[in-house]
Amino acid sequence: MFFKVFVKNCTLLYYQHEGKFAKLRKYSPVFTGAVAFLSSKSKSNIDTDEFMALPITPLDKLSSSPNDMKSKMELMILRVQKDFCRALEAEEDCNKFIVDRWERKEGGGGVTCVLQDGKVFEKAGVNISVVSGNLPPGAVAQMRSRGKKLENGDLPFFAAGISAVIHPVNPMVPTIHFNYRYFEVKSGDEVQWWFGGGTDLTPYYLNRADAVHFHQTLKTTCDRHDKSYYPRFKKWCDDYFNIPHRGERRGVGGIFFDDLDEPSQEQCFEFVRDCARAVIPSYIPLVQRHKIASYSKIEREWQLLRRGRYVEFNLIYDRGTKFGLYTPGARYESILMSLPLTARWEYMHEPKENSPEGALLEVLRNPKDWVV
Amino acid sequence: MFFKVFVKNCTLLYYQHEGKFAKLRKYSPVFTGAVAFLSSKSKSNIDTDEFMALPITPLDKLSSSPNDMKSKMELMILRVQKDFCRALEAEEDCNKFIVDRWERKEGGGGVTCVLQDGKVFEKAGVNISVVSGNLPPGAVAQMRSRGKKLENGDLPFFAAGISAVIHPVNPMVPTIHFNYRYFEVKSGDEVQWWFGGGTDLTPYYLNRADAVHFHQTLKTTCDRHDKSYYPRFKKWCDDYFNIPHRGERRGVGGIFFDDLDEPSQEQCFEFVRDCARAVIPSYIPLVQRHKIASYSKIEREWQLLRRGRYVEFNLIYDRGTKFGLYTPGARYESILMSLPLTARWEYMHEPKENSPEGALLEVLRNPKDWVV
Repeated sequence: MFFKVFVKNCTLLYYQHEGKFAKLRKYSPVFTGAVAFLSSKSKSNIDTDEFMALPITPLDKLSSSPNDMKSKMELMILRVQKDFCRALEAEEDCNKFIVDRWERKEGGGGVTCVLQDGKVFEKAGVNISVVSGNLPPGAVAQMRSRGKKLENGDLPFFAAGISAVIHPVNPMVPTIHFNYRYFEVKSGDEVQWWFGGGTDLTPYYLNRADAVHFHQTLKTTCDRHDKSYYPRFKKWCDDYFNIPHRGERRGVGGIFFDDLDEPSQEQCFEFVRDCARAVIPSYIPLVQRHKIASYSKIEREWQLLRRGRYVEFNLIYDRGTKFGLYTPGARYESILMSLPLTARWEYMHEPKENSPEGALLEVLRNPKDWVV
Repeated sequence: MFFKVFVKNCTLLYYQHEGKFAKLRKYSPVFTGAVAFLSSKSKSNIDTDEFMALPITPLDKLSSSPNDMKSKMELMILRVQKDFCRALEAEEDCNKFIVDRWERKEGGGGVTCVLQDGKVFEKAGVNISVVSGNLPPGAVAQMRSRGKKLENGDLPFFAAGISAVIHPVNPMVPTIHFNYRYFEVKSGDEVQWWFGGGTDLTPYYLNRADAVHFHQTLKTTCDRHDKSYYPRFKKWCDDYFNIPHRGERRGVGGIFFDDLDEPSQEQCFEFVRDCARAVIPSYIPLVQRHKIASYSKIEREWQLLRRGRYVEFNLIYDRGTKFGLYTPGARYESILMSLPLTARWEYMHEPKENSPEGALLEVLRNPKDWVV
């Protein structure tokens, strides 16, 4: 096992620096030896087989600070990323995720995994990022408006998060989005930290059993930590994923929360980790149930129109997208991977009365309680 | 002629109130007589045959204040709307514009004309609006930031404008957008007024002759009014239609200006009217030249990807769209008619070197001077 981890780390290190290594190919025997030697110095008890790519933070540093929340969060999101990617691939016949590990010159980086034009998934993006630097002014203003006390001057921050959006081919399979993140800001001598995140479902056709299963899975997870979480975070989700100009929610909701910093850092982490682990059981059964359903051209076109609404929400209202795109050095391809492969806008489209399309709109206009 | 105008006005009035009239159908002979009588009282020298629908302002009022800029602008944009819609229809085999005349409960209304799923035009929207009320706080802040001196308290405003976006089917035919508007704000005892607008072209494949023809038509129009206009407004256009996160312009530009209030109101109006009238000669020849060009699936997919960029600009950066969607009572269907019927987002798409797609990107990344 230990040897396997070691070899895997070397391989990942190699691919990560393939461009630079290529120039050194003529010295390859010497060079390979050197890599092995250097890597052996950074050998750790971290099994990188559990990840889609090498962590952003050097393995040494992660191994030597296992109790630091920054390390715990990075390792957790890397594991969830791989588990979720593998679970999605298992539903595909052959299409696999492509993996982009990228670095940000201002500090940190990320691993973006995208599967496009699959048989089951039209576009699936699963991204982790671990970034640090000084907070940009827009972010400072946003955080202060949420009640954070932050001094003037440079505010060093650390953020680690996972986010994913899965747009399936079949209109009977809903789209899922989730995002879990940990934030630290140093203001004066004090380090402030909090967690945020959520999971939400966007069906194209309403299936009540799906909505109930999805919400029940989230509620069971929340209830294990605090009975007040699910009702509060369910409402927060309905309020957040709102398209005011249309008077519609984006989907049937889920949970959403931010600024979670009690009862303790460890308990918050366990809650967030459990939410992230609940994504697979909340969603994959819905994929399995509907991925081979037959559908008509009309149903496909309705799916594309609803994807247009998804684009409207993400580009006009989503704080994450706006914050991301206005941040210098942001990797826009990773931010915009949430957009569907195809979307459609028709002027004045209105579903017929008593149609399945109308039944969906009804619950988007008047959010429901799916579990009690 | 006079009789024709009178009958046309009655017909338009009838259609405009068709819903209400329907309830009165049982009294139809009496009723028709009454409509004719009442309409005769409002007879005017305005030929409504020149419009797609009745003006927003009552005909009486428009006739009795022919020298008021508000009347002149409303009549001008109504005529340009019809001329442009008819010019586009002439390029189609059979598809016609549908006409929606709408009212806004806060004051004013508009006429939205949309042609969808045509043989030549996938989606064409030509909208006029004539609105009034008190400026919303967001608009006040935006205008103050541009140097307008506005008092505190209610600020009554009037705005009349035309805007259009034409997305053709054939990837060899470019998309065109134009918008011309007149604004009045009453602050204290003073009425401030200004004009704004522009016309810009978004090709999917670069055709230098098209770009030159388009810019030359705009330049000739500008030069008739002020030799400094074209170079200033061309640069303004390149700066405005920018997608910073991609480092690309939306298209090959055109002209764009705002806050135009000299040398005189009349001269500004004549300039704006001439620009609006230049849309047909700048664009229709390009449609005629390329609408029957053959194209491949790859070219169609590239067009859809570029339409995704168009959506990104309109939903993230365009001030008109943002201002519109955040304004209470705004008619979002008229604002969002600018979005294409279909758009596409692929992760990390990059055209091949020395490809026609790459040649377009080159001029989007480094705007060119097309005429001197």
